Amino acid sequence: MKQLALVFTLILLLGAARSSAQGTDLDSMTGKTVLVFTPHPDDELFGAGGTIALLNQRHNKVYIVIYTNDDKGSYDPEMSSQKLARIRKAEEEASETVLGTPIENIQWMGYDDGMLEYAPQPKLVEEATAIIRRIRPDALLTIDPGEWVARWHKTDHRMAALNTLDAVRAAEFWLYFPNQCLEQHLEPYAVPITYFYYTLPQDANYWVNIDSVAQLKLEALSKHVSQFEPAMHKYRPDWDPSDLARLKGMMSHQPKKDGHYVEAFRKAKSFNEM
Amino acid sequence: MKQLALVFTLILLLGAARSSAQGTDLDSMTGKTVLVFTPHPDDELFGAGGTIALLNQRHNKVYIVIYTNDDKGSYDPEMSSQKLARIRKAEEEASETVLGTPIENIQWMGYDDGMLEYAPQPKLVEEATAIIRRIRPDALLTIDPGEWVARWHKTDHRMAALNTLDAVRAAEFWLYFPNQCLEQHLEPYAVPITYFYYTLPQDANYWVNIDSVAQLKLEALSKHVSQFEPAMHKYRPDWDPSDLARLKGMMSHQPKKDGHYVEAFRKAKSFNEM
Amino acid sequence: MKQLALVFTLILLLGAARSSAQGTDLDSMTGKTVLVFTPHPDDELFGAGGTIALLNQRHNKVYIVIYTNDDKGSYDPEMSSQKLARIRKAEEEASETVLGTPIENIQWMGYDDGMLEYAPQPKLVEEATAIIRRIRPDALLTIDPGEWVARWHKTDHRMAALNTLDAVRAAEFWLYFPNQCLEQHLEPYAVPITYFYYTLPQDANYWVNIDSVAQLKLEALSKHVSQFEPAMHKYRPDWDPSDLARLKGMMSHQPKKDGHYVEAFRKAKSFNEM
Amino acid sequence: MKQLALVFTLILLLGAARSSAQGTDLDSMTGKTVLVFTPHPDDELFGAGGTIALLNQRHNKVYIVIYTNDDKGSYDPEMSSQKLARIRKAEEEASETVLGTPIENIQWMGYDDGMLEYAPQPKLVEEATAIIRRIRPDALLTIDPGEWVARWHKTDHRMAALNTLDAVRAAEFWLYFPNQCLEQHLEPYAVPITYFYYTLPQDANYWVNIDSVAQLKLEALSKHVSQFEPAMHKYRPDWDPSDLARLKGMMSHQPKKDGHYVEAFRKAKSFNEM
Amino acid sequence: MKQLALVFTLILLLGAARSSAQGTDLDSMTGKTVLVFTPHPDDELFGAGGTIALLNQRHNKVYIVIYTNDDKGSYDPEMSSQKLARIRKAEEEASETVLGTPIENIQWMGYDDGMLEYAPQPKLVEEATAIIRRIRPDALLTIDPGEWVARWHKTDHRMAALNTLDAVRAAEFWLYFPNQCLEQHLEPYAVPITYFYYTLPQDANYWVNIDSVAQLKLEALSKHVSQFEPAMHKYRPDWDPSDLARLKGMMSHQPKKDGHYVEAFRKAKSFNEM
Amino acid sequence: MKQLALVFTLILLLGAARSSAQGTDLDSMTGKTVLVFTPHPDDELFGAGGTIALLNQRHNKVYIVIYTNDDKGSYDPEMSSQKLARIRKAEEEASETVLGTPIENIQWMGYDDGMLEYAPQPKLVEEATAIIRRIRPDALLTIDPGEWVARWHKTDHRMAALNTLDAVRAAEFWLYFPNQCLEQHLEPYAVPITYFYYTLPQDANYWVNIDSVAQLKLEALSKHVSQFEPAMHKYRPDWDPSDLARLKGMMSHQPKKDGHYVEAFRKAKSFNEM
Repeated sequence: MKQLALVFTLILLLGAARSSAQGTDLDSMTGKTVLVFTPHPDDELFGAGGTIALLNQRHNKVYIVIYTNDDKGSYDPEMSSQKLARIRKAEEEASETVLGTPIENIQWMGYDDGMLEYAPQPKLVEEATAIIRRIRPDALLTIDPGEWVARWHKTDHRMAALNTLDAVRAAEFWLYFPNQCLEQHLEPYAVPITYFYYTLPQDANYWVNIDSVAQLKLEALSKHVSQFEPAMHKYRPDWDPSDLARLKGMMSHQPKKDGHYVEAFRKAKSFNEM
Repeated sequence: MKQLALVFTLILLLGAARSSAQGTDLDSMTGKTVLVFTPHPDDELFGAGGTIALLNQRHNKVYIVIYTNDDKGSYDPEMSSQKLARIRKAEEEASETVLGTPIENIQWMGYDDGMLEYAPQPKLVEEATAIIRRIRPDALLTIDPGEWVARWHKTDHRMAALNTLDAVRAAEFWLYFPNQCLEQHLEPYAVPITYFYYTLPQDANYWVNIDSVAQLKLEALSKHVSQFEPAMHKYRPDWDPSDLARLKGMMSHQPKKDGHYVEAFRKAKSFNEM
Repeated sequence: MKQLALVFTLILLLGAARSSAQGTDLDSMTGKTVLVFTPHPDDELFGAGGTIALLNQRHNKVYIVIYTNDDKGSYDPEMSSQKLARIRKAEEEASETVLGTPIENIQWMGYDDGMLEYAPQPKLVEEATAIIRRIRPDALLTIDPGEWVARWHKTDHRMAALNTLDAVRAAEFWLYFPNQCLEQHLEPYAVPITYFYYTLPQDANYWVNIDSVAQLKLEALSKHVSQFEPAMHKYRPDWDPSDLARLKGMMSHQPKKDGHYVEAFRKAKSFNEM
Repeated sequence: MKQLALVFTLILLLGAARSSAQGTDLDSMTGKTVLVFTPHPDDELFGAGGTIALLNQRHNKVYIVIYTNDDKGSYDPEMSSQKLARIRKAEEEASETVLGTPIENIQWMGYDDGMLEYAPQPKLVEEATAIIRRIRPDALLTIDPGEWVARWHKTDHRMAALNTLDAVRAAEFWLYFPNQCLEQHLEPYAVPITYFYYTLPQDANYWVNIDSVAQLKLEALSKHVSQFEPAMHKYRPDWDPSDLARLKGMMSHQPKKDGHYVEAFRKAKSFNEM
Repeated sequence: MKQLALVFTLILLLGAARSSAQGTDLDSMTGKTVLVFTPHPDDELFGAGGTIALLNQRHNKVYIVIYTNDDKGSYDPEMSSQKLARIRKAEEEASETVLGTPIENIQWMGYDDGMLEYAPQPKLVEEATAIIRRIRPDALLTIDPGEWVARWHKTDHRMAALNTLDAVRAAEFWLYFPNQCLEQHLEPYAVPITYFYYTLPQDANYWVNIDSVAQLKLEALSKHVSQFEPAMHKYRPDWDPSDLARLKGMMSHQPKKDGHYVEAFRKAKSFNEM
Repeated sequence: MKQLALVFTLILLLGAARSSAQGTDLDSMTGKTVLVFTPHPDDELFGAGGTIALLNQRHNKVYIVIYTNDDKGSYDPEMSSQKLARIRKAEEEASETVLGTPIENIQWMGYDDGMLEYAPQPKLVEEATAIIRRIRPDALLTIDPGEWVARWHKTDHRMAALNTLDAVRAAEFWLYFPNQCLEQHLEPYAVPITYFYYTLPQDANYWVNIDSVAQLKLEALSKHVSQFEPAMHKYRPDWDPSDLARLKGMMSHQPKKDGHYVEAFRKAKSFNEM
């Protein structure tokens, strides 16, 4: 039985194919534009930090779009949301700098941590659509809207996952948010290929070998000082040296496949086609 | 382990059975009323077009309720939403006419394409509930709200799936939307049986043999001219003859089971009981 | 592949562990505080009634928080929502009394049946967060936000599942709903352990042996008179004796594992960690 | 200074006049269609009951559209919302029958009392627009959205006032809610003249002499039994005879102008033009 | 012309009078309960601070309910919302202490400054209704929802004005938010008399002579340090002595009527009747 | 009585003055920045077109921000929303060009005509706040949120009026929408002076003599072809010469004061202070 496949087969074969452009594989990309959506500053690192580093090394232009400002996750009773947002922004910039992404390529959508689920829809889709139509990426990376997301990550993660997916679709047809075309000269754009990180193991169909940047990924991670102890409970802008050494020694905890450090993705053409 | 089953077993055995009516199987229905909900004009065709044709041939009254007007899915820069909605309506009527459904049995709920997710809830449930209480179908067909829907079809598909399910439940108890009873004389109604199309292969538990109408299904599909090239990129009201021939020859792409063309469903009693 | 696990491993190992408190197992709890969230008055009974009885017997303080008033599920045309809410409240109190829960430990959140999905968010999260921060439970029981919930139980069940989960997370960080701390002296609180009932069989990882209270569970169930016939179709405050006997004889329909009556849970540390 | 007037003068003179149809005065109407919007069952009676009676006597077709079901305004602790809605509907029908309006011309929009302010917008405008496009009235009566409404009558009254006004405007241009035209064959319609009741004394510019029906208006009022004592505190379906006599003797409390009983209106062309 | 008056006259005379209780005048109250709603911590002081002081002196129980936490109005770039909310709370408590109000009688509704307009409705009404039903005041003071409010004070002020008014009405009928009665034992309550502060001069119909407490009012005002310079631009917890002296010398800026310092109100029975 | 004045007097005298900057009068401005908000393309012309022309002539930088795309107001059944939006944009640019405003100074906020009332709040305030913080105008012109607006112009006009006012206030305090400062480097900004057009005659307190540009204003008006007949009923891009002549001859319909053509404003310091 492959009824679902039929639907798409018919659509594809009969000319309703949304995109004739063939997406290039992440591994062989060079000189391309890659757009990464992430719910919080660090999810794109956990999910695709090695890949981002490789893309930057291979002379691609990587853009990072961050939905929320991550202004709530501290145990420090002296912390305020405004202060934490400021800290998280600086840490994210430091972390992406390690990966080679230019700071000016980082865009913040300006939503508060934990509140993305309650942001006004479809305004949120409209905003992500405008970003896609402006950047016009050769490949897009985003969080996977699978079952796991609904269960473990309702707020922010779920909304970021579904919203980006909806924006990929909307970006393709100019009659979605036509004012973007009429008033801002943003032409419709079909994303050729999408890679979903934070995918379930059984859904992964593409792996990037990150052997050469696995240590760099830990280095980038170490910039997110406020996410770890002791700064989590009482903020300080630096590490205790022994903690930092421990973090950098955690290579063995990174996932491997066939003997190599990898990042796993679900790859899909256009808006989520199999 | 069958804890979940227990919940329902207890409910059913002890008299909270929502419906005493035994739903008739789709295959043996005649002289019955069947209500089909679809997110867009064509989803009911992809998912259950052959079944609809058979139901019409067997003298059942089939009603089609379409959530959205499908007014956005064109690559033609000269297209407008109003024009596309008008085209899609005519195509849907032509397509359902091929399947034998009377045009006056087609009802449009009037939502814009891609915006169903953002329609005011629970107003949307209230409207679908009123339709069920007015039509009072012996069987109801709708899109399956499974995991697949959440992932691949957020906007429109997901909402249409969950909304119809909620409406089936609400229709049964008059204290849901009591003004429908008090002011419009719409009595509560328990849908005896529901068939979900666009179900996952592993969830399907009922198949309709559509050998006799498989070609008719392609014929109905061919009425949706604007969904295919060349009309998709530059609208024209007719096919290029070679494209049309190619479509009609696609019998082999239709799904088969045990040597027969089939449409797969998940069948459930009342509101989604196993 | 264990990429997902990696994310959490890193977080845990590196000090971002949300909670240092080790949750005690349900089986060995005594003198503890347990907070149970339930969408309707009776879901907590179906899912965890035996466990609740055992917790009460072992001198724990059990609190029940009920999202909705269950004011719609009747076939009786003479029923009103206000009357049904009054009946359901009395039945719930009688049922929990059988399980040993003090009536003053039952809290109603005051939402109407079937309308929780449409309650204002994130207000709903804020309210549940305040409850958690006030009760400060050693363990929390709630409905599992798995795939099954989305499919079979959209309204109320889905929202109750996700909302409680979000509240568990929010409760931990004081910058979520900081007015609760600033104005109501509700300090942040990390729930050490969460047990999800109504979990899918394949997701269950913890079973409570309820042999000693299985009959009591049926007794508690029998207090929900209005949920069963004949009261469902024409309300009466008592059972037909033969129906009642039948209910109490249904021991064999309760789920078993390894020869014992059990209730199944998915157990998770903090907010849904594996 | 008459800058505001200028705006409209220019618009009118230069051809943007919304409507060329000249509205007929209420006093001289016969054989026409009149559409009355009212927030609750009885506001249209207080504000325009005599006028409605005269319109019916003069062979006009009067339609009454009632936004809410008035299901909350009782002091009786035994009352329920469903019961009160049923009572209020019967009373409204009895009252309008006294005024000569056919029962089948009464339409209920189905909103709950006191909740209109929170009904989903612009859905509410869309529904009122559809009614106007279907009835296509020669004159429309509705509650005045003046300052007084904002202050004394926020819920229901304010929303009914503004919503009807918005619907009058939207009805005129087919691009408002175009699906009504595309799918339901509801053509745009320009209401020629609108009369606002519950207007402020200083804003009134039109008075209907209701001498001949002033007593009838009290008779119609007497049908709203549940709105008065003793039924208000403990419902009974009939009057205490002495109370009823007192009500019918209250002629002198009705407003007069130049020695005649009158109902006052603010009359405006199209959507609220001076 | 007095058509509007007629509506109310009929309602009042014929038994629909919402309240038989005669409200006591503010001037002669003793041993009563008075409930004051205020959008921000200090509006009740500007509008009715002298009256509150007198009420406290005359052994009435005064309750202050504050909609928002006032967490935004600072020019200090080092200020955070959490810090400002903490400061404003302490200042409000100090200020009300000067007026004689016990700190435990101050209740914060927990909304953020400037965001009340966007709070979920009708939840906000429901919450204010519960407060009224719990406190059961002999008189209620609140901000006037007149034209002036709409124009000068949209956010927070307008919503607080209309919301309190709606809550006064809802509190009277138990079918508004019936779960409050069914689940929390909050019985309906008719507020006998309401005094609106911040009323327009032309609308004022009641003045309280505050000669004896005019200086105290300035003293109370001086507790709101953060609202004035220099703390407004760079926070410090105390006054510059010369500024403080200047504030306390501002007696002459307080409004007078007939030679006396006064606070002006619009007094209305029940929910805003003239 | 001047209680209201007192509130502001105290605030102003005691250092809470929101702005020390003294706004310059429109008449004497040169080399300044002026920001104009308008609900539709043409409201700013009706209300302040002459003033805008004078400001441009005097070498000020004028920015026009337009809330909606005006895509609905046509009687032409062949018109579509996308086409009308395109036409209205071109007409607005032509009209502002006549007034001397550079096209690149025109910004469209991208909302659909007639739907501004239903746009997500406070997102709308946030967007207008960002514009103010970016442009940092010496004076701001906007529609007056007076009683008249509520009554005659609910949709779009009312929301544009209140929203701009709220944005002026929010722009001043960085804790409103702090992400604009933290992530986009938009510093808080206090608008020194606001001029409200479409003000009520009794509220006007400032008049600009437009004698020298009164004819130019009509010329600018003539660019809005689609707003007048015959293009209103059947679109054509040009005028009938006789209609155009008639329009340009309408000088006498423009308002005068003391023998001069004028535009009237209500002038207010900071956010609507008297």
